Amino acid sequence: MATFRGDPALSRSLGGFVRDSRPEFGKILRILVEIPSVSMDPERGDDVRRCAEVAADLLRGIGARASVVRTRGNPVVQGMLRHGRNDPTVLLYNHLDVQPADPAEWRRDPFTLHRTPRGWSGRGTSDDKGPLVTALLAARYAAEHGLPLNIGFLWEMEEEMGSPSIEGFLQRRAGSLQTDSVLVSDTTWISREHPTVVYGLRGLLGMHLSLQTHERDLHSGTTGGVARNPLSELGRVLARCQDPRSGRVTIPGFADGVEPLTGAEMEGFLRSGITVEGFRKGHGITRIRPSIRRREDLIRALMAEPTFEVHGFSGGYPGPGIKTIIPHRAEALISMRLVPRQDPGAVAQRVREFMMQENPDLEVGVESILEPFLGEFSGPYADAARDAMRFGFRREPVFWRAGGSIGAVTTLRRHLRVPVSLLGLSLPSDRAHGVNEHFEWRQAAGGIRMLVRYLDAISMIPKKP
Amino acid sequence: MATFRGDPALSRSLGGFVRDSRPEFGKILRILVEIPSVSMDPERGDDVRRCAEVAADLLRGIGARASVVRTRGNPVVQGMLRHGRNDPTVLLYNHLDVQPADPAEWRRDPFTLHRTPRGWSGRGTSDDKGPLVTALLAARYAAEHGLPLNIGFLWEMEEEMGSPSIEGFLQRRAGSLQTDSVLVSDTTWISREHPTVVYGLRGLLGMHLSLQTHERDLHSGTTGGVARNPLSELGRVLARCQDPRSGRVTIPGFADGVEPLTGAEMEGFLRSGITVEGFRKGHGITRIRPSIRRREDLIRALMAEPTFEVHGFSGGYPGPGIKTIIPHRAEALISMRLVPRQDPGAVAQRVREFMMQENPDLEVGVESILEPFLGEFSGPYADAARDAMRFGFRREPVFWRAGGSIGAVTTLRRHLRVPVSLLGLSLPSDRAHGVNEHFEWRQAAGGIRMLVRYLDAISMIPKKP
Repeated sequence: MATFRGDPALSRSLGGFVRDSRPEFGKILRILVEIPSVSMDPERGDDVRRCAEVAADLLRGIGARASVVRTRGNPVVQGMLRHGRNDPTVLLYNHLDVQPADPAEWRRDPFTLHRTPRGWSGRGTSDDKGPLVTALLAARYAAEHGLPLNIGFLWEMEEEMGSPSIEGFLQRRAGSLQTDSVLVSDTTWISREHPTVVYGLRGLLGMHLSLQTHERDLHSGTTGGVARNPLSELGRVLARCQDPRSGRVTIPGFADGVEPLTGAEMEGFLRSGITVEGFRKGHGITRIRPSIRRREDLIRALMAEPTFEVHGFSGGYPGPGIKTIIPHRAEALISMRLVPRQDPGAVAQRVREFMMQENPDLEVGVESILEPFLGEFSGPYADAARDAMRFGFRREPVFWRAGGSIGAVTTLRRHLRVPVSLLGLSLPSDRAHGVNEHFEWRQAAGGIRMLVRYLDAISMIPKKP
Repeated sequence: MATFRGDPALSRSLGGFVRDSRPEFGKILRILVEIPSVSMDPERGDDVRRCAEVAADLLRGIGARASVVRTRGNPVVQGMLRHGRNDPTVLLYNHLDVQPADPAEWRRDPFTLHRTPRGWSGRGTSDDKGPLVTALLAARYAAEHGLPLNIGFLWEMEEEMGSPSIEGFLQRRAGSLQTDSVLVSDTTWISREHPTVVYGLRGLLGMHLSLQTHERDLHSGTTGGVARNPLSELGRVLARCQDPRSGRVTIPGFADGVEPLTGAEMEGFLRSGITVEGFRKGHGITRIRPSIRRREDLIRALMAEPTFEVHGFSGGYPGPGIKTIIPHRAEALISMRLVPRQDPGAVAQRVREFMMQENPDLEVGVESILEPFLGEFSGPYADAARDAMRFGFRREPVFWRAGGSIGAVTTLRRHLRVPVSLLGLSLPSDRAHGVNEHFEWRQAAGGIRMLVRYLDAISMIPKKP
């Protein structure tokens, strides 16, 4: 069968398809965004399950077989647009779950889709429901035009929790998931001007710390000076783990095995034109660490160095006014981003030991572990990615290591043993995970073009025997 | 006129009065406890004002003149049971406002009075509504029996906020408040076995710290390592101020001027029989600081050394699960207990300078300042207190320096220039400021006896010219 590459008429038809599909894109995105599929909120379980059913119906609507597969946690939506037994197969990975969103902080309700001048706003529009709808429409176009490729779908619903159930799912369903490659669309460009192919990801080690020193709050007048204070003690443990001004982690052995970037990698990254000030503005960062002075500092801090981040700290009386208690309990949620060659299990052990040595009464729980990922940046899939990005967005893409973590990526590669490519569509200004998250039609339109071209190209890569 | 001291019949009548007044005590306490007069909660303003009106009516009910006096903040209830122009006058100070209470944490609703085997439970029963009702009944008995003493009342409604308006009130009303002495009943015994006369109080310096590093939360994957984290930075500032294991404040110059206890004071305190283990159990402390090994350590830490306490720390995502944000803001509420010879204004300046030097982006606000207090422990008022405590509770009292702060005490002494005596009724096990606060009838009954005896004794101290 013919592929697009040799057929100018089909290429013109793609342009028309993309232009015409904006209303439908918005319609499907509305259906998904208006189901608050917040995976980490136990009270949203019904919404998560409803979202899975609705998404499976969307797959059926484009002619795919689809099912909602139970796991130990949230379900996985699995689908297949089959072309022919002898054709190669690709598996498109996206996720349907979203971060929490506090309506009080948002300009408009996070779980109602709103039109914006450039596209749409709402929780999940950029991460990852918008890219998911983009992949859905591109796959439909490819199938309708007879592309000789089997297109599988794997839509996860626990990505924002660190994908705890995907491992078990893959163990059980590996047979039904045989594929020649995986395409993940859940990454962010380094800037609006640079279409970005990600070939590296940081891992994540999430921990929950708590310290209880008493059964109940005490009076700081009658017992102050004598009774232990869990807020002070937990704060001190955290202060011993890291110098917050430089970001340097001070836990001995924490960065064992970390390799510096090669000169070639650094050169490639510098050619992207990244600047400290541009990065700062692009990500809406008011204050960058004073240790980040040159472009090289920025690149190293984002790609080659682990982090130690306190996401939440709570305990005692929050106000108004001052309640002069000695609180009985303090809690902190932290995570460390890990870089290639760090072993998350060994790091978890080291961090726990260090903390327990600092304060033996601490309770340290590991919440999530994601391995770091380092993919290929040459070969036929990398070439197809480079060409498709150029075609979709009419700019030269950059190959990049991203600072974030996608747990499913390393798990998919380990179980399916095929190349995993990451072609994302989100922009740094989209505010993924933040308030007023949004997604631009420009990214969806270029994304459909890019994905059709990519599917076209990999349909010509021979199946592995 | 006759005083009780010389009249055994009156002394017997007092015993009967106390025994018979338990139901009425509970009735009055219920009226007051069931008005949630939480001074630091702006939403309780109506309750605070209602409590003042009700309390003024209680004073009128025992034959006193009473008025609710406006201030810049919450009102003050002022009353007078006048006997005669040439008789001496005492001013009884108590407070009607209470600490906040979270019903979810309490066994029973904190703003409903409940009977317990030993007395009553509810917010404010011990601090300070129970002692206030005790003083009310003792004053009524004294007046009804013709004690040659004018008894004034000053019931404050901002004590739990550090008494911000009492200064202005005293400036305006000094004329109507002329008195020969002040009796404050708002302190806690050192143990159930030791009736306690407090002659020293720690001061308080309350501060609100906040640090905002960004306009909004950021994604810790895409910006982690580069963007500043306010939770880590604020935690580090606090860790630089104090060693939480020993409690030692590490801000240079913080303890300037602090004088060690004299050998005589230490001996007196040791004679109280205080022990580390007894104190720990009595106050419901699970974990005492490891630096507190001997009784002397305990006494010094409670009486002669300043503290640095974190009452609340908040910021970021509190859970459930981990939301991998870099928060944009962190806040902490802290206070320092100050000991005699520390100048609160100078300490505030030093603390602020140290913190701003550690982190120039910090916002440091002083929430409240209370001076430390060191009263007399000899002379006619001290003698009257010692005798009255012995009479009321049939045990030898101890003279003590308390760890808490009562802002009004130093303000009253500065404006009225008369001896201020502190005869408290609360027990360490009452859980003042904590959950399930309660007050025992035993303390109220002994307290009425004690106060009548005290009023009797000071009615014989000649007026100052």
